[in-house]
Amino acid sequence: MHLSLKTLLLLSLPLFSNGERFVRFISTDNKEYYGDAILPANTTDASKSVQARVIQGDILGDFTVTKQVKPIKKLLAPLPNERVRTVRCVGFNYVAHSEEANVTIPQWPILFYKPWTALNTPSDPIPITAGYQTQGNFTSTMDYETELVVVIKKKAFNITDDEALDHVLGYTVGHDVSHRGWQIDRGGQPQPQYSMGKGADGWAPWGPAIVSTSLIPDPQTLNLWTKVNGVMQQNDTTANMIFGVKHLVSFFSMGITLLPGDVIFTGTPSGVNLGKTNPQWLVDGDVVEVGLENVGTCTNALKYV
Amino acid sequence: MHLSLKTLLLLSLPLFSNGERFVRFISTDNKEYYGDAILPANTTDASKSVQARVIQGDILGDFTVTKQVKPIKKLLAPLPNERVRTVRCVGFNYVAHSEEANVTIPQWPILFYKPWTALNTPSDPIPITAGYQTQGNFTSTMDYETELVVVIKKKAFNITDDEALDHVLGYTVGHDVSHRGWQIDRGGQPQPQYSMGKGADGWAPWGPAIVSTSLIPDPQTLNLWTKVNGVMQQNDTTANMIFGVKHLVSFFSMGITLLPGDVIFTGTPSGVNLGKTNPQWLVDGDVVEVGLENVGTCTNALKYV
Repeated sequence: MHLSLKTLLLLSLPLFSNGERFVRFISTDNKEYYGDAILPANTTDASKSVQARVIQGDILGDFTVTKQVKPIKKLLAPLPNERVRTVRCVGFNYVAHSEEANVTIPQWPILFYKPWTALNTPSDPIPITAGYQTQGNFTSTMDYETELVVVIKKKAFNITDDEALDHVLGYTVGHDVSHRGWQIDRGGQPQPQYSMGKGADGWAPWGPAIVSTSLIPDPQTLNLWTKVNGVMQQNDTTANMIFGVKHLVSFFSMGITLLPGDVIFTGTPSGVNLGKTNPQWLVDGDVVEVGLENVGTCTNALKYV
Repeated sequence: MHLSLKTLLLLSLPLFSNGERFVRFISTDNKEYYGDAILPANTTDASKSVQARVIQGDILGDFTVTKQVKPIKKLLAPLPNERVRTVRCVGFNYVAHSEEANVTIPQWPILFYKPWTALNTPSDPIPITAGYQTQGNFTSTMDYETELVVVIKKKAFNITDDEALDHVLGYTVGHDVSHRGWQIDRGGQPQPQYSMGKGADGWAPWGPAIVSTSLIPDPQTLNLWTKVNGVMQQNDTTANMIFGVKHLVSFFSMGITLLPGDVIFTGTPSGVNLGKTNPQWLVDGDVVEVGLENVGTCTNALKYV
């Protein structure tokens, strides 16, 4: 086969890209950019990316992946907090997690919210203010939860399961930081609302990249894990979700408009402290890594402030 | 006493105003304005206002109440949905309501959220889509809840009860539209999250005016009521709240940033269908008036769509 110089040149350049791993980052010029992360060879972990093609425009609307490549100094959350309109979360969406918490397997998805002010970067500290630290007999029961996060790109209202993925930009990993005392014991009896135990500023690290549905056509095949100070605590696969991504998106659109930039934390697998006989509640300085296959990790330390 | 013409003229004009009843409205020129409602004589019900002084600027920041008066054709929600950053709601905040629902009196405020997409005007229909209508054995258990609503004007983080009202712009009335089946029976067992039963588009009418803290220095003295098709169903006073406005604002700021435009629905008194032996669940066409003393009413019809 004979290849012309022009053909060889085209083959050596990246093909036209619609964006595969959407990141937001500070570059060495200390400016903020959106980009399509360029990964080192032999990894699919966007946390390891050191450069990105700059994206111009709005990743939730019209945008262009340019040929300009910028070094990554710090990976931020994939969208600024203000662009995320609503943070939906799912409770007890893995059978083993429901069992460890002695909760009936849900027949319908359990929806709760975090305020968008809880969102955090993949690397900054998770602030624990006095109200969530141990006070007298009320122990600080800080816990970790690794979750696959869905990012909505297109308005959805009363859509079906089959239509759901057309409304999804991609997936990333999130950490649903939880204080079990405020979530359950002090959440209201006999029907605790989880909100006060999960909503503090910075209690939802997410990122480092939104990996597009073109790279992850089936989100129910991914390993996800948690390491606390380097030790594995959760290790499961999204195949074990009770309600998969398609159904969650369609169910949450029941009479409800989902908007571009809305995110859904899809629930955590087993292995959290809540289910343990001798829980090791997280304390000041503990470092939590939450990870998702083909996406990357968020690594954040708890910080008493 | 001799009064000059100039003095008489000054006395006949409104004095300088910081805004007392903040409304947003469509005028007869079909344009949208912010205004300070001018009430007819002998009423404190902003729903009855037919004109307003136009406000220039941002009622959550710097603004001026001008001398320009515009007629009101339609009162809107006091802020556009997009300006409300987070909608917090309180569960079981009146003793009699907790008792009618067989719920333990809460020791700490029970927090849940509505998405901001649920907000509605004081007069437009409340849409009930197929998922919330009766389907086979699953009855449409639509219920009303009248609530005092607090509007935040200034950022709050870890503030005390005593500091709380400095962060409040004022008060209005809101309707926490609720589907009891999705809220409780299908909200997740044994710990139902209320979200799916309260979050549909248009399920939070509010307004018609944000009445300033200068006019309502003590929010715990106001009558509030509900009429369904003209018949009184709830009739109580905010004096019966378990947790008053000051404590709710400070409690919700525990490690959490409250932002200008955040609103808090402070819970409903007794008299809802949930507590009745023979509930008359709301159906297509039912008209619900929710009212708050010194503020006004929202009157919205349920509409099957």
